[in-house]
Amino acid sequence: MHEDSRSNWRHNFLDGHVPSPIQSYLDDLLHRMLQNAQGEVATYIPELGKADPEALGICITMADGTIYTSGECDTEFTIQSMSKPFTYGQALKLRGPEAVLKRVGVEPTGEAFNAIILDEEKNRPFNPMVNAGAISVANLLLGPASQDDMLSLFSNLAGRSLTLNESVYRSKIATGHRNRAIAYMMLNTGMIDNDPEEVLKLYFQQCSIDVTCQDMAMMGATLANLGVNPKTGVQVIEPNYVQSILTLMNTCGMYDYAGQWAFEVGIPAKSGVAGGIIAVIPGQAGISVWSPRLDEHGNSVRGVAVCQELSRRFGLHVFGEKAHSSTVIRRSYPLGEICSKRIRSLSERAFLTAHGSKVMANELQGTLYFASAEMVIRRLTEGASELSDIIVDFSRVHNIDDAAAHLLMAAFDDFLKQGRRIRLSGMRPELPFSACIKEKQRDLANLLLFPDLDDALEAAENKVLEGHFEEFDTAKYEMSKLDLLRGLSDLEYGVLENLVRIYSYGEGEKIVSEGDDAASFYIIANGLADVVINMGEGRNKRLASLGPGASFGELALVEGGRRTADVIAAQSTMCYVFPVEGMLKAAETHPNILIKLLCNMVGNIASRLKHANDEIRGLQ
Amino acid sequence: MHEDSRSNWRHNFLDGHVPSPIQSYLDDLLHRMLQNAQGEVATYIPELGKADPEALGICITMADGTIYTSGECDTEFTIQSMSKPFTYGQALKLRGPEAVLKRVGVEPTGEAFNAIILDEEKNRPFNPMVNAGAISVANLLLGPASQDDMLSLFSNLAGRSLTLNESVYRSKIATGHRNRAIAYMMLNTGMIDNDPEEVLKLYFQQCSIDVTCQDMAMMGATLANLGVNPKTGVQVIEPNYVQSILTLMNTCGMYDYAGQWAFEVGIPAKSGVAGGIIAVIPGQAGISVWSPRLDEHGNSVRGVAVCQELSRRFGLHVFGEKAHSSTVIRRSYPLGEICSKRIRSLSERAFLTAHGSKVMANELQGTLYFASAEMVIRRLTEGASELSDIIVDFSRVHNIDDAAAHLLMAAFDDFLKQGRRIRLSGMRPELPFSACIKEKQRDLANLLLFPDLDDALEAAENKVLEGHFEEFDTAKYEMSKLDLLRGLSDLEYGVLENLVRIYSYGEGEKIVSEGDDAASFYIIANGLADVVINMGEGRNKRLASLGPGASFGELALVEGGRRTADVIAAQSTMCYVFPVEGMLKAAETHPNILIKLLCNMVGNIASRLKHANDEIRGLQ
Repeated sequence: MHEDSRSNWRHNFLDGHVPSPIQSYLDDLLHRMLQNAQGEVATYIPELGKADPEALGICITMADGTIYTSGECDTEFTIQSMSKPFTYGQALKLRGPEAVLKRVGVEPTGEAFNAIILDEEKNRPFNPMVNAGAISVANLLLGPASQDDMLSLFSNLAGRSLTLNESVYRSKIATGHRNRAIAYMMLNTGMIDNDPEEVLKLYFQQCSIDVTCQDMAMMGATLANLGVNPKTGVQVIEPNYVQSILTLMNTCGMYDYAGQWAFEVGIPAKSGVAGGIIAVIPGQAGISVWSPRLDEHGNSVRGVAVCQELSRRFGLHVFGEKAHSSTVIRRSYPLGEICSKRIRSLSERAFLTAHGSKVMANELQGTLYFASAEMVIRRLTEGASELSDIIVDFSRVHNIDDAAAHLLMAAFDDFLKQGRRIRLSGMRPELPFSACIKEKQRDLANLLLFPDLDDALEAAENKVLEGHFEEFDTAKYEMSKLDLLRGLSDLEYGVLENLVRIYSYGEGEKIVSEGDDAASFYIIANGLADVVINMGEGRNKRLASLGPGASFGELALVEGGRRTADVIAAQSTMCYVFPVEGMLKAAETHPNILIKLLCNMVGNIASRLKHANDEIRGLQ
Repeated sequence: MHEDSRSNWRHNFLDGHVPSPIQSYLDDLLHRMLQNAQGEVATYIPELGKADPEALGICITMADGTIYTSGECDTEFTIQSMSKPFTYGQALKLRGPEAVLKRVGVEPTGEAFNAIILDEEKNRPFNPMVNAGAISVANLLLGPASQDDMLSLFSNLAGRSLTLNESVYRSKIATGHRNRAIAYMMLNTGMIDNDPEEVLKLYFQQCSIDVTCQDMAMMGATLANLGVNPKTGVQVIEPNYVQSILTLMNTCGMYDYAGQWAFEVGIPAKSGVAGGIIAVIPGQAGISVWSPRLDEHGNSVRGVAVCQELSRRFGLHVFGEKAHSSTVIRRSYPLGEICSKRIRSLSERAFLTAHGSKVMANELQGTLYFASAEMVIRRLTEGASELSDIIVDFSRVHNIDDAAAHLLMAAFDDFLKQGRRIRLSGMRPELPFSACIKEKQRDLANLLLFPDLDDALEAAENKVLEGHFEEFDTAKYEMSKLDLLRGLSDLEYGVLENLVRIYSYGEGEKIVSEGDDAASFYIIANGLADVVINMGEGRNKRLASLGPGASFGELALVEGGRRTADVIAAQSTMCYVFPVEGMLKAAETHPNILIKLLCNMVGNIASRLKHANDEIRGLQ
């Protein structure tokens, strides 16, 4: 994510950048909605009657914090019933779901917001989105510092410091007789166990907090972002309570219009009597609309109309036609089809191609949840009985949910029990799966972890090659066995033997440094060396790994110039070093040495180019 | 998708393959659930009382048709109320949503399944998942061939021919007094306008169809798969009606337990009095459980328990913590960083690197919906004022919903209005977006479509290079200007001029054929040629495109052997052809010709290898 993607799009827009079609659409939508003058401003609390009936603000805040606004998005109004989902979440957190469920149910009522009905069987309010339920929730939150706690909860949700609207609060206390009746009825049935006046005070306070349309969209984005406020990064609500809140907003959030809303709009939402609506598109965005004129259900007329159009226009219905990604398996291939960066001799490469089919590598991508994990384990188990090793690369997996983690772990267990090896790579520590794999690995010798896919491939290749290729002798070598020098006459080998020098390097020692003059080329007699480039910020990237017989720096023969990468001994390593000047001089009398060497180089590089092109085709 | 992925997993399992952890889990779940003997078999229809109270079947059918079963999944029982979502969908299709909404509402009632209550204001049943609503729906479906239509609807949903259970049907007709009362009450209020006995017959028929647990899971998978039966590929329900059906299953599917179900399980579902439950995980799978003992709400005791556990275990709650893929932009890069397969000269390549930053290529992947499209247009518009061309590749985009299509189109319009060029590639015809882009393209000269990204890159490169490099002369050439032959003496060029021959090829003519002896190498004097390999099944793949000055077949000089690809003239093309034998003979007296040529080859191939390695790094 680029840093500026968290900034307000509006600013970019005003700075003269290309306008966003989302911004243009919202401005047009605002313009059209301003024509709609239906409904009446609520007057049952005198303070609410003072609102400007023409006011309209629309705000969309993406789950990454990007904000789109149109109209009056900075004007304050009282949050009213839009506070209910959040105090319910707070009660779940402080009292636990069991205690909360005893005091308020989860059934839609189909009744109006201020209905005085309780569940006949259990005596509790039907759900926390109607007044009775919210008052019961306030009873659960009552404590020594409840008002401060309340303000701090909503300030955390908005990502800025919010305050109480004292005059609305006092107006509510003075006129909230119906809610008073509800509270006393619940005291009578034992649903609330504090002084009803204190409970009502807290309830009236939560409803009297001043917010803007932007604040509410940020609260919605916080729910969309699994409870983390995208502006501040603070986890305000636990993810498991987000699920409960969204469910109740979806079934009960819009009073007796809730069923129709779920049917037509299909976005968890909550409205307030001051004309606000907050709506949440899980994983995507929070939406807020504010316009004071209400319909007969008590919902903002323009607010409902805006949400209806946004849902249709942007395909936001929770049960709408959604395409699920079906390509969680990026590619699968046997060893040898794609090779590690370890440079192998021609004969080693041929052996890997011939015997690599007992090892299957699988690169995963995207998000692993139930159905996508099912595809992965189906692929893994296909033909698994023919395999000795399975490589699974997670470097492109964004997230693994618990369900997928359990399924994968169970599949791995089955393989391991059958004596197969599992090699996992690219398991970033922030994936929750990572910890349980590491835990498991302690007991299981055949569950192997690698930082990246290349390491896993190299280790699997080494295992396949093990015992089939003799190591080069440390003291003596036959030039005719080296790929780069094959096909010369004995006389010509004699000339080379007079030119070559032997150098030894300790582990970690630089053999060649980027930027150095390229005055000689190298063949590894024994040991192992890595070709490494500096990626900046202190990070190195291994381009290739070179074992006995591999050559490097040959381009010096053709181009001279400077080294383009470091070569570092990965272990104690011995190299044959050929000085370029000496070679060119020798070529004057023995041109065939240079011609053969160049031919071998062309063949070698061309084979690597062919392999690289195959790999590109595979990657695409 | 592999063909066998549509087969029954169970078969693979029995064939001795590695077991699926999903299968093992279901078997374990079945075993545990068999211990639960709570609840009572329904007896209000005498036929139902004959069911085996111990029966239990669990079936999960993935949206791609893969089936997992445990227990009694092939035993028939009557569908009962699980038919309601589907007849409702059929009424929406045949009568249209408006007519249906007049006869049945969409509000959850919180009432029992057989409640005799109607919406006071509109006189209609609250929703189609309670008996009154379903009878009202049956009234809408009544017609000359209703019973056949009904059986054919459910057979299409199950993907096999279903039949009526005559004895249950007759039992229902004989004892369905309460439903008779409901029907007459609705006749009284004008909600039904056919003979109530005929309406009830159809309603009793729809409830008396014999199904198995596997049938119901396939019906669920059909809803999960946007209305297309994954076994037969038949679109049984339109996608927009799937949304309505799922919404009502979610809010009203489990009688007066619906709110608690939405809260705890959070999967759209419907239960039937014979002990069946069908549940749908949109985009993922259909689930069915059958076990005849019912709880006090009329839902299968074990069925509810199985769904509760599956939802928790596999993270299936519709508002559960779901990770959304955030990597819809695969990569973005300026022209020159990644090149087309057109082989460019060293100087052309340098020019592209220096001047390519006015063209930005963007490769998209995954699914484009509101929030992911928002990210794309944000990226596209960032710095757009500096660009002349934007390339957008769709070849890895699985799906684009309407919302995303509109947003992208609006963004493209803005660019085009500013005189910039938009180059789109990989837009497969099955993407709905494809048609509207093609429509638009007719009017807009700067909206350019390419079959794949490589074509788009090549065209953009050509545009950048246009006017900066003179074409090679068709009649004469200077050997010293050719990359492959640079650095020779005049005497040596003279030797080559005696060896070279000139050939002309018409468009489409083969210059070199795969498998031919490699006896000469080529340099293009003018024209354009494609290096092509046969991918099997008549498909060709272009590996590279070669313009004037580019060489091919040079490996013949080193390895001899046979051609590994076809080279075909893409237009009228003239080549300089150098015979390998003649070159090797000339090298005996003029070794420097061969040495220089090999050095140039090494430099050229090494530069291509470096580029290929860079591209691999980019792709990873």
